Amino acid sequence: MISVKDAKEIVLKSKQNFGTEEVSFLKAVGRVLKEEIVADRDFPPFNRVSMDGIAVDYEQFKNGQRAFKIEGIQPAGSKQILLNNKENCIEVMTGAVLPKNTNTVIRYEDVVIANGVATIGIDAVKDCQNVHPKGKDGLAGTVLIKKNTKITAAEIGVLATVGKSVVKVVKQPKVMIVSTGDELVGVAEKPLEHQIRRSNVFTLVSLLERLNITSETDHITDDKPILKTKIETYLKTYDVLLFSGAVSKGKYDFLPEIFNELGVEKLFHKVAQRPGKPFFYGKTTQCNVFGFPGNPISTFVNCLAYFYPWYFASAEIKVAQETAILTEDVSFNPSLDCFLQVKLHSKYGHVLATPVKGNGSGDLASLVHADAFIVLPNDKKIFKTGENYPIIRYK
Amino acid sequence: MISVKDAKEIVLKSKQNFGTEEVSFLKAVGRVLKEEIVADRDFPPFNRVSMDGIAVDYEQFKNGQRAFKIEGIQPAGSKQILLNNKENCIEVMTGAVLPKNTNTVIRYEDVVIANGVATIGIDAVKDCQNVHPKGKDGLAGTVLIKKNTKITAAEIGVLATVGKSVVKVVKQPKVMIVSTGDELVGVAEKPLEHQIRRSNVFTLVSLLERLNITSETDHITDDKPILKTKIETYLKTYDVLLFSGAVSKGKYDFLPEIFNELGVEKLFHKVAQRPGKPFFYGKTTQCNVFGFPGNPISTFVNCLAYFYPWYFASAEIKVAQETAILTEDVSFNPSLDCFLQVKLHSKYGHVLATPVKGNGSGDLASLVHADAFIVLPNDKKIFKTGENYPIIRYK
Repeated sequence: MISVKDAKEIVLKSKQNFGTEEVSFLKAVGRVLKEEIVADRDFPPFNRVSMDGIAVDYEQFKNGQRAFKIEGIQPAGSKQILLNNKENCIEVMTGAVLPKNTNTVIRYEDVVIANGVATIGIDAVKDCQNVHPKGKDGLAGTVLIKKNTKITAAEIGVLATVGKSVVKVVKQPKVMIVSTGDELVGVAEKPLEHQIRRSNVFTLVSLLERLNITSETDHITDDKPILKTKIETYLKTYDVLLFSGAVSKGKYDFLPEIFNELGVEKLFHKVAQRPGKPFFYGKTTQCNVFGFPGNPISTFVNCLAYFYPWYFASAEIKVAQETAILTEDVSFNPSLDCFLQVKLHSKYGHVLATPVKGNGSGDLASLVHADAFIVLPNDKKIFKTGENYPIIRYK
Repeated sequence: MISVKDAKEIVLKSKQNFGTEEVSFLKAVGRVLKEEIVADRDFPPFNRVSMDGIAVDYEQFKNGQRAFKIEGIQPAGSKQILLNNKENCIEVMTGAVLPKNTNTVIRYEDVVIANGVATIGIDAVKDCQNVHPKGKDGLAGTVLIKKNTKITAAEIGVLATVGKSVVKVVKQPKVMIVSTGDELVGVAEKPLEHQIRRSNVFTLVSLLERLNITSETDHITDDKPILKTKIETYLKTYDVLLFSGAVSKGKYDFLPEIFNELGVEKLFHKVAQRPGKPFFYGKTTQCNVFGFPGNPISTFVNCLAYFYPWYFASAEIKVAQETAILTEDVSFNPSLDCFLQVKLHSKYGHVLATPVKGNGSGDLASLVHADAFIVLPNDKKIFKTGENYPIIRYK
């Protein structure tokens, strides 16, 4: 049995390179950028008026002039005009180019306009105020977004501004999710007394959607030859296979045997953790194989604790580790790392984690009442109120 | 000018009822559930074996018996079988129904099997161990997911388990996003020197996608009759209109005038905040109108600070307020609430907020370097390291 730390290290080392593809920038949200985004021009591209009002030459104001004849208007979206007489002013709109021979904008709120003359009613005017100078946010050529950034709404605005209507992002892996277990029937079916409905594959589909990964699903009966034939094909067709069930000690837990026969290199089987101990992980030259134990919470937490970091490492994005503070003492005796479900609360800038009582790894409903798992290390038995530990947030 | 608090109250009060619709459960992620999800049977529906091993009658073990003849196998997905002789055992698989006349499961790891006899090698066996009792997680009829819950991967598993292949969720509002401003050209175009590319509408599209709201976009030139005609149609066609620009003091800021002429009830115009002061908010009987100021950061923060809470109120979901701790002193003189961009870090269970230096509300690139806005109230000028304030996270 391997430790959680070692298991994670092995998973991260076996990352894949998915390659890149080009997509429309508006479809790129949630994807990982695979190019540097550079300012195509100065940012802003001209001395930009940032308040509606009048533009003047500051020297005139400084010398005591308060009444300025209006020479013209500079709207946003028009070519730069010129102030001919420095004793005059030009009306300017937010977003406009600052007119030539002006350098300072006084907003309408501080001006009275009558008979074509604007009279400034305040004395607190600063040189160059209400002007966003050309290049202030970045000169042409400045890197605005680094490679390997996850694209969010904030990045979308920058992409639009620099004209990147198409961007290079990481290609997503081709994933097949397989459930096993003869007790399982479809969601729309009515199960017999000894049967239950399939749920883990759908949970996994949703967890992968959070990473913008589209996946396919299959259910294979607990029949070794059928399993083997299908998996042989899948190993050649997909970048990743995720299994739920059939990796433990049961008489019909054929997967580890089949993986071996099909040349899947076993990287580990069994991790010193609860839930999800019988987790199998292996690979071929082109496919990574995650064999999650079939209990709902085991599948769920293993996907978050191993598949997610594997994906992040493969896509080359850094995800910061969050921590939270226990609000209750917790004791956990086995020499295992414990993934404990917790409800999170924010208070005074602290993230507080309150354990959610579940009934073990089969208790799917308890997932709904928590937001995260707190990861309690195996070198302690008692975890005290006020201590902080890493968390894996899923809501 | 209205305070941020009052503005938010008005926005929340003017929530809409979008109605409900039924969608396939797998398409329901991110949507707001509009029905109670109830256990259709006991959860688990039978005494469920939770470890691979042998099932025995605990009385026999207690009385000292350690060797049990194997009478049969109970796989997962098979009808419950019966232990005929209480001195024998049955091999059982995870997920199987516990055989009749047995109550305790000893896992394979603690058993040696030879010649059809399983011998238990440990003394620490508890009555009913490794059995997940029928109904333990919830009896038939128990509410497993409350109405008005946002559906995540955790809920998907429960929906599948109880056979809800179709679920009732809140209908999403029909949204039109309009940019104005003659300085704007398309993303794929090469702007002239005095022009810039459209970006705010795309940022808004992305921010709405985070709420699973699909929106349409339009750009209207700064021409009053054209604006008026189009807006008149949009007011009748959409549940919500979001505007970017043309709500301030400029000569071409026609929107407030047009809204008035078209019978949009002004609920407020101008909020005591930076950025985003000229924010206009109004409504007709069927449409809510958000007129965001055109500066990129103003549009961005107003969408998060007003449209998001309005949507949450309309969909009837509760979103907890997060807080974070300042890592630097900040001073802010104007009598305005300040939305300051911050980069968040998690440390010892604390959420630390470090201000990101930006160049004002036009500095779109600075959004990329932050994760959130921290909301500094207008009743103070100095905000000290270590103090905590509400945050609005956008990454």
